[in-house]
Amino acid sequence: MPAGELTLAHIRAAADRITGHVRRTPLLSAPALDALTGAQVHVKPECLQRSGSFKARGAFSRMSRLTPEERRAGVVAYSSGNHGAAVALAAHDLGVQAVVVVPQDAPAPKLAMIEICGAQIRRYDPEREQREPIAAAIAAERGLTMVPPFDDYDVMAGQGTVGLELAEQLPDVDLVLVPIGGGGLCAGTSTALKNLRPSARIVGVEPVGADDTRRSFVAGERVGVPGGVHTIAEGLRASLPGELTFPINAALLDDVVAVQEDDIYGAMRIGFEHLKVVIEPSGAVALAALTSGVVTAEPASRIAVVLSGGNVDLGRFAELVRPG
Amino acid sequence: MPAGELTLAHIRAAADRITGHVRRTPLLSAPALDALTGAQVHVKPECLQRSGSFKARGAFSRMSRLTPEERRAGVVAYSSGNHGAAVALAAHDLGVQAVVVVPQDAPAPKLAMIEICGAQIRRYDPEREQREPIAAAIAAERGLTMVPPFDDYDVMAGQGTVGLELAEQLPDVDLVLVPIGGGGLCAGTSTALKNLRPSARIVGVEPVGADDTRRSFVAGERVGVPGGVHTIAEGLRASLPGELTFPINAALLDDVVAVQEDDIYGAMRIGFEHLKVVIEPSGAVALAALTSGVVTAEPASRIAVVLSGGNVDLGRFAELVRPG
Repeated sequence: MPAGELTLAHIRAAADRITGHVRRTPLLSAPALDALTGAQVHVKPECLQRSGSFKARGAFSRMSRLTPEERRAGVVAYSSGNHGAAVALAAHDLGVQAVVVVPQDAPAPKLAMIEICGAQIRRYDPEREQREPIAAAIAAERGLTMVPPFDDYDVMAGQGTVGLELAEQLPDVDLVLVPIGGGGLCAGTSTALKNLRPSARIVGVEPVGADDTRRSFVAGERVGVPGGVHTIAEGLRASLPGELTFPINAALLDDVVAVQEDDIYGAMRIGFEHLKVVIEPSGAVALAALTSGVVTAEPASRIAVVLSGGNVDLGRFAELVRPG
Repeated sequence: MPAGELTLAHIRAAADRITGHVRRTPLLSAPALDALTGAQVHVKPECLQRSGSFKARGAFSRMSRLTPEERRAGVVAYSSGNHGAAVALAAHDLGVQAVVVVPQDAPAPKLAMIEICGAQIRRYDPEREQREPIAAAIAAERGLTMVPPFDDYDVMAGQGTVGLELAEQLPDVDLVLVPIGGGGLCAGTSTALKNLRPSARIVGVEPVGADDTRRSFVAGERVGVPGGVHTIAEGLRASLPGELTFPINAALLDDVVAVQEDDIYGAMRIGFEHLKVVIEPSGAVALAALTSGVVTAEPASRIAVVLSGGNVDLGRFAELVRPG
């Protein structure tokens, strides 16, 4: 294995553990998208995943390894919403109590999913409070196990099952575009694909206002974004790449690029009109890289694009994505 | 076989012919939908089908049986949009010329799909012209083969592959809800399911303003809607059940119900927010029957709902479906 402690075997074991709990998402395509790019574009719609994002994979991967004692005590997670919804769903399926620490302005569908799964919500003010210490204090006080959003090998191995499925569904893939927030999806997916399809180029995508991994990739070390992160894509507002995810992404990715906010809205619209799927801003960045031309498609090449989530409410969607 | 000339063998043969051309759509579910109904609800999202609706199944089923002479000459179809888009896509895949007769107010995504597949569009004014004679005249003049939208056993057999897939994906299904326009999807699906899962109840769903099949089901013969059909669901504006589809539906359906326009919009919204799929008005009636309470779910029963299409543009969607 080229990097870190994440191996293909680790990802295959995660796939075995989460089967039956998560969906094997299909590949979708649209003639309009092929016509626009000149390539064969296949999207992996993790917006159709249980809990509405790929995060269900990592949550089930980690939580299926809880000891009986840990299960009895319960778990805690902090999240902009999608990881929290995934942990709440996994807790519900596995019969475990969960507390989820979320910003008070988290999107309604993410909060609704957490509530409907019966998890306890602890809101915080992202302007004034830090979520990690809040979650850590709850964990310590109540003896709960923390389920980290990305910087954990079991979580990364779960996210890597996206790459396993892609390798089977599109064996001759030339280029794979993956969103980057904390880097867990990208680390897992690239570990699977660089083992199984070494010829595939893998490019991570961030919003220009939260391009910490792009800057770190160029610098060769973990650096933040001067002035802090600013993007509509709340799921990608990591201020620094993960300690564990970054070395893997630095070793395995072929490139990291960044897209404008307007291009994210355009990709959400293409998702709606041509793919018939609802993509949240964070989930649309990889598609935006392609449809905006930030990434150039080789003619007739086979491109896989991961749409990482769809938890956005209709009012916000309609506000961001102007009907034409 | 209980009715008509449509058999399970016919549907299985259609499935073999269309494999590789159409998608096997997944089943999706949402905790919110289960909580709302008290049942286990699984949707079959044909909005994710190639061409954006189930119509691709029937078009490929019929057109894969064209003789070499018929292929060289080409085909013609009339359609409110979805059947036209499906015929255009099949024509593109099979290397056949196609002419599609559509109303001048057809939704933009349906026209875009027809155009991008390279089919020729012939617009007509639905207030002043009849589409069948226009298509028949084009067929006669140019020696083209007509691909009917529903009243054809090869087309029905293709649509019936939805039922084949449901029988495999949800073997213990208790209730299946299917939209009815001309009745081809319902006839095919119920033929497959009543053979493979005889205990499943199958209920057809129409808009109240286009409930010709419901009225005919009650009357025991094909009758129209007094005053004509009025519904936002342009794909379901059949004024009379099909000559071939109706006897099958009359024999096999357990019931036919009708839903209000507002309930259709509500179901489209649930599709967006909880299932992350885009459903057009016609595609949402079966879900509307469940979420409005027109059909009552037995507690903990297993319900399959066919979402038949997703070809609606964002402007129209946002106009119809008020964000809450």
